[in-house]
Amino acid sequence: MPHDDLDVLAANAAFYRAFADHDADAMEALWAQRDAVACIHPGWQALHGRDEVMASWRSILDGPDAPEISCSHAAVYASDDVAFVVCVEKLQGGMLAATNVFMREAGEWRMVHHHAGPIARAAMEDDGDDPPTMLN
Amino acid sequence: MPHDDLDVLAANAAFYRAFADHDADAMEALWAQRDAVACIHPGWQALHGRDEVMASWRSILDGPDAPEISCSHAAVYASDDVAFVVCVEKLQGGMLAATNVFMREAGEWRMVHHHAGPIARAAMEDDGDDPPTMLN
Repeated sequence: MPHDDLDVLAANAAFYRAFADHDADAMEALWAQRDAVACIHPGWQALHGRDEVMASWRSILDGPDAPEISCSHAAVYASDDVAFVVCVEKLQGGMLAATNVFMREAGEWRMVHHHAGPIARAAMEDDGDDPPTMLN
Repeated sequence: MPHDDLDVLAANAAFYRAFADHDADAMEALWAQRDAVACIHPGWQALHGRDEVMASWRSILDGPDAPEISCSHAAVYASDDVAFVVCVEKLQGGMLAATNVFMREAGEWRMVHHHAGPIARAAMEDDGDDPPTMLN
């Protein structure tokens, strides 16, 4: 697997670690500093701009109902300075499919977009091992 | 608006035109030729690789229940060779939020990833004019 892919997977893992730890400061640090970031939480309309996106994460992670979450089936699609990860999120309420976009900023892969939405449960039932993660 | 943003919006519009026209050949032509493409249809698990993604589009667009669709609220987030568009899809069954990722290939912006999922109806009811589309 190319070195960059491992770095992108590490950035993706850091996102889910911050999410699982309900750590809003870590979440804020791993998003790009640029204003041009976006986020589509499950069922929400799209949020645009860093202030709006960060406020949503603080609302979610600081609240009493912050979800438990884990990530699997992460597949990396990388270009030189932009990469996206397609993965599965497992929550108590079911499975979500997620797209996470990262850009290089100050030498690090930082998140610029997150989009998660529900997967019909039946679609996952016959799903076995992880697919390959080296796709670029 | 930067020139590239207009080109990306044109590529995004071509995607929705092929979708609305149920034109599987046009749909296939606007996706990147590279194998490393992905697609998350609403409620589906992620599809990986050009063959799998193109088969899904032929199945959807050639079928008797191919949906009517229109796109609004398109916002562009562009880097040099990769861009993504966040937009709203309107179908008879409701609203979807979509992320469309494009990469430059042979000098053209071509689709490498599509992810669409439902928006709760209430979230759209107070929504007025389009947000700005120049965000990068």
